[in-house]
Amino acid sequence: MDGFGYRAWLQPSKAQLGFIPRLKGAKDFAWEECAHGLEALFGRKPTNRGDYTITLETSPDPAPEAYTLRGGPEGLTVTGGCEKGLLYGVYGLLSRLCLGEPVETMNVREKPAVRHRVLNHWDNANGTVERGYAGASLFFKGGRIGYDLVRLKDYARLLASVGINEICVNNVNVYRDSAKLLTDEMLPDLARVAEVFRPFGIRLIIAVHFDSPVILGGLETADPADGAVARFWEESARRVYEYVPDLAGFLMKADSEFRSGPAALGRTQDEGANVIAKALAPFGGNIYWRCFIYNCAQDWRDTETDRPKAAYNEFHPLDGKFDDNVILQIKHGPSDFQVREPNSPLLGAMTQTHQGLEFQITQEYTGQQKDLYATAVQWEEILDTPVTDACMTRDLVGHEVTAIVAVSNTGADANWTGHLLAQANLYAFGRMAWNPAQTAEQLTRDWAALTFGRDPSLVETLTSMLLESRHVYEKYNAPLGLGWMVNISHHYGPSPEGYEYMKWGTYHRATHTHIGVDRTTHGTGYTAQYHNYVRDLYESKKTCPEKLLLFFHRLPYTYKLKNGQTLIQYIYDTHFEGVGDVKRFIKIWESLNEKIPQDAYDSVREKFDMQLANAREWRDVINNYFYRVTGVPDDKGRKIY
Amino acid sequence: MDGFGYRAWLQPSKAQLGFIPRLKGAKDFAWEECAHGLEALFGRKPTNRGDYTITLETSPDPAPEAYTLRGGPEGLTVTGGCEKGLLYGVYGLLSRLCLGEPVETMNVREKPAVRHRVLNHWDNANGTVERGYAGASLFFKGGRIGYDLVRLKDYARLLASVGINEICVNNVNVYRDSAKLLTDEMLPDLARVAEVFRPFGIRLIIAVHFDSPVILGGLETADPADGAVARFWEESARRVYEYVPDLAGFLMKADSEFRSGPAALGRTQDEGANVIAKALAPFGGNIYWRCFIYNCAQDWRDTETDRPKAAYNEFHPLDGKFDDNVILQIKHGPSDFQVREPNSPLLGAMTQTHQGLEFQITQEYTGQQKDLYATAVQWEEILDTPVTDACMTRDLVGHEVTAIVAVSNTGADANWTGHLLAQANLYAFGRMAWNPAQTAEQLTRDWAALTFGRDPSLVETLTSMLLESRHVYEKYNAPLGLGWMVNISHHYGPSPEGYEYMKWGTYHRATHTHIGVDRTTHGTGYTAQYHNYVRDLYESKKTCPEKLLLFFHRLPYTYKLKNGQTLIQYIYDTHFEGVGDVKRFIKIWESLNEKIPQDAYDSVREKFDMQLANAREWRDVINNYFYRVTGVPDDKGRKIY
Repeated sequence: MDGFGYRAWLQPSKAQLGFIPRLKGAKDFAWEECAHGLEALFGRKPTNRGDYTITLETSPDPAPEAYTLRGGPEGLTVTGGCEKGLLYGVYGLLSRLCLGEPVETMNVREKPAVRHRVLNHWDNANGTVERGYAGASLFFKGGRIGYDLVRLKDYARLLASVGINEICVNNVNVYRDSAKLLTDEMLPDLARVAEVFRPFGIRLIIAVHFDSPVILGGLETADPADGAVARFWEESARRVYEYVPDLAGFLMKADSEFRSGPAALGRTQDEGANVIAKALAPFGGNIYWRCFIYNCAQDWRDTETDRPKAAYNEFHPLDGKFDDNVILQIKHGPSDFQVREPNSPLLGAMTQTHQGLEFQITQEYTGQQKDLYATAVQWEEILDTPVTDACMTRDLVGHEVTAIVAVSNTGADANWTGHLLAQANLYAFGRMAWNPAQTAEQLTRDWAALTFGRDPSLVETLTSMLLESRHVYEKYNAPLGLGWMVNISHHYGPSPEGYEYMKWGTYHRATHTHIGVDRTTHGTGYTAQYHNYVRDLYESKKTCPEKLLLFFHRLPYTYKLKNGQTLIQYIYDTHFEGVGDVKRFIKIWESLNEKIPQDAYDSVREKFDMQLANAREWRDVINNYFYRVTGVPDDKGRKIY
Repeated sequence: MDGFGYRAWLQPSKAQLGFIPRLKGAKDFAWEECAHGLEALFGRKPTNRGDYTITLETSPDPAPEAYTLRGGPEGLTVTGGCEKGLLYGVYGLLSRLCLGEPVETMNVREKPAVRHRVLNHWDNANGTVERGYAGASLFFKGGRIGYDLVRLKDYARLLASVGINEICVNNVNVYRDSAKLLTDEMLPDLARVAEVFRPFGIRLIIAVHFDSPVILGGLETADPADGAVARFWEESARRVYEYVPDLAGFLMKADSEFRSGPAALGRTQDEGANVIAKALAPFGGNIYWRCFIYNCAQDWRDTETDRPKAAYNEFHPLDGKFDDNVILQIKHGPSDFQVREPNSPLLGAMTQTHQGLEFQITQEYTGQQKDLYATAVQWEEILDTPVTDACMTRDLVGHEVTAIVAVSNTGADANWTGHLLAQANLYAFGRMAWNPAQTAEQLTRDWAALTFGRDPSLVETLTSMLLESRHVYEKYNAPLGLGWMVNISHHYGPSPEGYEYMKWGTYHRATHTHIGVDRTTHGTGYTAQYHNYVRDLYESKKTCPEKLLLFFHRLPYTYKLKNGQTLIQYIYDTHFEGVGDVKRFIKIWESLNEKIPQDAYDSVREKFDMQLANAREWRDVINNYFYRVTGVPDDKGRKIY
């Protein structure tokens, strides 16, 4: 496959190199990637008759993935802390060249903030992708591993070029077929996938079924306290590492959404995780243990149970009890990847446990790659959220947060991500996991320039539209942190009461006068899970960020916001605005027609039509719902159905 | 298979015959069935040394399916208008014997009210049953016809014993695999199914795909005005009748719920139906043409379009344009088998067109064979509904209504219907289609006695519980004819706004003050589709039956019902009552424990637990929904969540 969308941010550069490259160094994989990149991006193979020398070398570094780029008038040296670091140096150099940085003055040292920069694929063995909006699986087909070798290599390059170094190939919801990834039946094929990714510095992870000892091992229980179960995991680890010696580890979704787990057997989460951790330890593997545990069979009548409290209640008491190669994988918010929710109170609450911060690139609740939604903006907000008065979430990264993880938005669609502009989210994730201090703005601008070229007005226009897109989407969705007003199951489009009487613990409890759940210490007590500073912030309606108001407080529709507007009028206004904004986006996109390759332009233009229909549906359903239930008219007299 | 549930209403009688039967007559199929019945039901084979002679004979009758039973001191003569009539006479005799009627004084003439007494199976070729709650298909397996021959014969006997004489084996939603029933690939198997049912007087129907000329015939269009399309249907009919010479005809769901049809090609429904009718006519076949046509992609904002008006608008102007072997199959109500809706205005509006009145035995919206629901009670109400001041719906039967049709509730479950007591609905359907003048009470009582024996207190208890069950179910569901407050797709359990913003045209438009759609001539004008007498009845809030109030009128929650109660209080009261009634049903059932075979008792007891949970959920969700939206408290202060 080839074409504009397929090459993503590794587009041939429209600018000239300005020199003829000569390449020095051991002819290893980094060398090949550098030569390949120079040719693919600039149409210039390195040659011995070049007039500018790029030297590739490694030099032991305490941060082996680090690299430096030191340029001068005669040449530039890329130095990696190891071969992997050198490879990142090559990609770093190539992208800087594409962005137009002059080689002579280049003077850079880069090292990743966290060791584990991880992509989770929710790919099923049958070739479907759970919450996938970009076509079929890149890894599976018809119940087995099945892939296009050329394509997989191109995918590996895309990921490595932004610093991703671990990928889980199969869905965290492991079914009987993908459970077999631990067996001789599937491991030979998995080993071949690992071979594709290995040179790119990417290690594989396998999502495993908690009941594997029963399903695969023929045991009567998966109880982690059972010696036979421990032996099963030991044997499985040994077998897996024979095939894939550099496997990064296992990933587990246990006791979650009707899946089995230690709690179901009367054991604790640390007991469940540690037995597998011990099996992986001799091979240097980690177990990623997801914290997405809550009562998914809640009675809507039950107002005591409050789903956002669940993960903290389950895991916080266990801090320090996990083995050193356990990484608790924590979704950024306490709900489930909603457009707006506070950060998980677990983040910053555990100092003795390795943690992975989990984002979602695939747009499950955020427009499903039909609607434009720059996830980096949300991530930046998340990282900028205080944990205490002296510490931001960002500050945890590289300390207790040793992994940054995200659910991938990729699939077999020709452009990888369905919506072409959703490539920005994959790009930004890798770069942000490498260095969380980078702003969404910078990452978006880089992506735009790498993808569409360095035309300043194009880059600025695209960048500002993308940066705005998250807030536009939020405007026409469930207001003020409510979340969950989506159609059930598929999660696209509005259904104000769709989840209201269901078992998932996701209620807004709207009446004709009030809406929202009181999660303060006077209500469900959820706020008490935060550090005092943050608790107090959310506890008070005055200091609570307004965008989270209905997440934390139950309020009358007549409640006055800081600007004097009522809450109900805010809902009407934002929903009307959202649709207007999408129309404006379409105009902006149309203004770029000349500067974007036609097929790329058309494909995005089509998505915008879908987004406009979606935004209208949200506007009309949400406004209508609140108008019906409250009887309060829009003070601007606009059409509410 | 064998056992209590499997034998249904053909249970061995606990009473004695009181005589030793001798059987006279030609040893044809009716003779065999009589001998088989005497042995199976009474443990008595007929013998030449018997002391009471049962004579089986035929005597030409203008109503060939008619029969007489004339008893005397020495013997009884069963006379059929033809062999089929004789068979019905045999079943009639056997059931009367089981019910304890004395032979000597038996003096009966029976003839069916309509020629076509039809069961529609919504069975898919893959073996699933759409809206089926009684296990897999009896006819299909793995994409092909596949059945248990012994079981199919027992099924045929069950159906014939209550007078059903036509069955459609495949789903009206015809997919590519079942479309092949018209081809040499599936017809040999279908012919074998026909052979099983033929001796029982049951003819097959095939549901066909409107696009068959394209899918199977390789044509470019299915346009009924195209000569090649007409030839395709002629050839198909010829082929089918070679395999199944007595086929009753075809069944078509066209232009409905995203299915293709004549309207999609700019043709009228009569053009679509007649081209197929002409192909079937030489073979004596009919085309059943469903009238379930509406805009299933409605915008909820659109308050002009009113789904219940659709079928009348489409078909009424075409009265007289259909060929004589077209039967328009009309659902009893204008919505879709809801618990409470008015009769279709098409019924009685067309005098020049054969019509089939379609019921649903399978409990799609009425408890899915978990909740007890005697459909016969609803059918009786439907038949008792006026068409004009001088004519009831019942009076149409045998005139323009030449077919009574129902969607079957049967499947491969050991007891045929999932819920054992749902057998009553299959039984009642057959008997009522034969003679619509029979009351639900009589049919239910007969069924109870045939199934569980003639213990008077058992029969009375069961009968009165069943007769009440429809109203109990209605109490805890969407109130006053609103309908559609169900969970989307699967249609079990409450979701007050589940369909409110969807495309299906099913809206209640509840606000904090009002609810319902004004379907009078001041509103959508739906009432104008009825005869003046009926229109006036529904038009006025005073004369509109209260149970249909919110189907026809938009009303404030404070509206006073005839007994002085407010509408909102009525909702609360009925929903509390409904749960109480189910608890009472459980007590009643428990009181019958001694009198019911243990496994039958247990299986129904389990269903009652499900029903109670469902009734509670409905009560709490519906009451909570209305309480939230109105803020009006229950005047009895009961718990509303």
